[in-house]
Amino acid sequence: MSLEAIRAVTFYDGLEVRTCPRPAPTADEALIRLRLGGICNTDLELMQGYKGFAGTLGHEFVGQVVEGPAEWVDRRVVGEINVSCGACDLCRRGMPTHCRRRRVLGLIDYCGAFADLFCLPVRNLWAVPDSVPDEAAVFTEPLAAACQILDSAHIRPGDRVILIGAGKLGLLGAQVVRLSGADLVVIARCERPATLLHQWGIRTAERAALENGQADVVIDCTGSADGFAAALDLVRPRGTIVLKSTYAGLPQADLTRIAVNELRVVGSRCGPFGAALRLLESELVDVRSLIEARYPLAEAGQALEYAARPGVLKVLLEP
Amino acid sequence: MSLEAIRAVTFYDGLEVRTCPRPAPTADEALIRLRLGGICNTDLELMQGYKGFAGTLGHEFVGQVVEGPAEWVDRRVVGEINVSCGACDLCRRGMPTHCRRRRVLGLIDYCGAFADLFCLPVRNLWAVPDSVPDEAAVFTEPLAAACQILDSAHIRPGDRVILIGAGKLGLLGAQVVRLSGADLVVIARCERPATLLHQWGIRTAERAALENGQADVVIDCTGSADGFAAALDLVRPRGTIVLKSTYAGLPQADLTRIAVNELRVVGSRCGPFGAALRLLESELVDVRSLIEARYPLAEAGQALEYAARPGVLKVLLEP
Repeated sequence: MSLEAIRAVTFYDGLEVRTCPRPAPTADEALIRLRLGGICNTDLELMQGYKGFAGTLGHEFVGQVVEGPAEWVDRRVVGEINVSCGACDLCRRGMPTHCRRRRVLGLIDYCGAFADLFCLPVRNLWAVPDSVPDEAAVFTEPLAAACQILDSAHIRPGDRVILIGAGKLGLLGAQVVRLSGADLVVIARCERPATLLHQWGIRTAERAALENGQADVVIDCTGSADGFAAALDLVRPRGTIVLKSTYAGLPQADLTRIAVNELRVVGSRCGPFGAALRLLESELVDVRSLIEARYPLAEAGQALEYAARPGVLKVLLEP
Repeated sequence: MSLEAIRAVTFYDGLEVRTCPRPAPTADEALIRLRLGGICNTDLELMQGYKGFAGTLGHEFVGQVVEGPAEWVDRRVVGEINVSCGACDLCRRGMPTHCRRRRVLGLIDYCGAFADLFCLPVRNLWAVPDSVPDEAAVFTEPLAAACQILDSAHIRPGDRVILIGAGKLGLLGAQVVRLSGADLVVIARCERPATLLHQWGIRTAERAALENGQADVVIDCTGSADGFAAALDLVRPRGTIVLKSTYAGLPQADLTRIAVNELRVVGSRCGPFGAALRLLESELVDVRSLIEARYPLAEAGQALEYAARPGVLKVLLEP
């Protein structure tokens, strides 16, 4: 591999680790060397055709700046994934993650982070505190998304909260919600997530053991019509349901119950990196227990295959 | 008809105006003589099997107290339709309209108002100001439900608001939202509602003429999956959709867009009678233009049939 070539995990007709030219950052971008990448369910969905994606995968990363403004070079960084225009009405109204012209790292019209080197606007970068190791920093993006639950819904310390779906994101969400002091129960089907939740002092329950119409807030991390239906059953009148997942196709949903019970259904996507880094630095959230495997970048195909197995938690890629 | 007998519009196997014994109010109820009743879409849905209803219909009314506490006798009244227990957790948390054991006038386990005489707890009654004629007072219940839109969502004076579905409730909702100063457009398909809206100075538009992703708030009064899908298209990221209707069956709904666009979908049902009476007294809302026909109680069958025709607005019943 020449100095001018890098490896990148690409998805066109299929998944492939390609040799590509070294990326050339624009004036507002930094060039970043990957230290660790994290595989997200969205990566797996892209490979199933979600958003008709074609290009380099990867949006969860920790890296090191190779080229860019002097104050950033050599720093360990994580990065916000939405590359916004700064000019549209939503950017100007303080909603850059919803920018009308947004591109998204490894998701929409922007080369992803599963590569030896990749670019990201300098304004998207966050420096990683020295005390946060790479294995924790790589969780900054999904942990920020978990923190966004608290932005979407006001969870009060006295609330009864049920979280459905203890996958990768659900386990982070549960830990964040636990910090609010709320009375949290997680519906977890698999053994490993349940064991982790118990280690963290979080109660789990079978769906059938929970009484309907009692929860102040239900967080649906399942991405399934069944999960949403369970949320409608479990939430109290005037309670809140947080949708923290994408759903396959167009699920059937009992909209009448939203009206009659005066529910509040709120969506939640990307979240605050600052908060996530603070929680990692203070070790209030355990992310490293979610790591199931590490693969070299060259074996990204096997890594993604392993990550797609039911119940598998976080799989990392290292250059 | 003897002094001990009354007529009541009942739905058991079918619709029938029956002669029934004079109702006997309990200690906390008033006996009310109907002055005018209003036919609501929910009455029509009950006759299609909604909630497996059987009994006396009617929940929109203005009446006169015949028996009850001295300070109420002879007063013209309207009444809240939810008969709550006052003891369950939701009543104690200030949500009596969501009482766990609630009965509902003419809807759930409680004899309705389409009768010469009927009962309602005294605590449910509101006195009608002298300046508000029966023809306006009979709209108090649906106007309160329209006011509930503003309880469910914070509509700001600078907001762009789209209301879909200019039926009976939609026309009241549009008038209430108009008072907020918001930039309101109503998607109205029929000519008569459009004419009324223009009289009130409210803009109407074809669905196709409206740009997607621009409205801060979309109010869906259609009760159809298409209406909800249009709302998802029209609302901006982080905007609010108010569901103001019941929906037939289990419509398909694009829950992913709620998550990805971080939308807020809020349900809205019964509303504040005090606010509705204030708006009627101050004549800030025109309800009487919605009246299409008046039928005697004895002809309730024809009245309900007429009310069920597409595009027909309010049909009243008088004893």
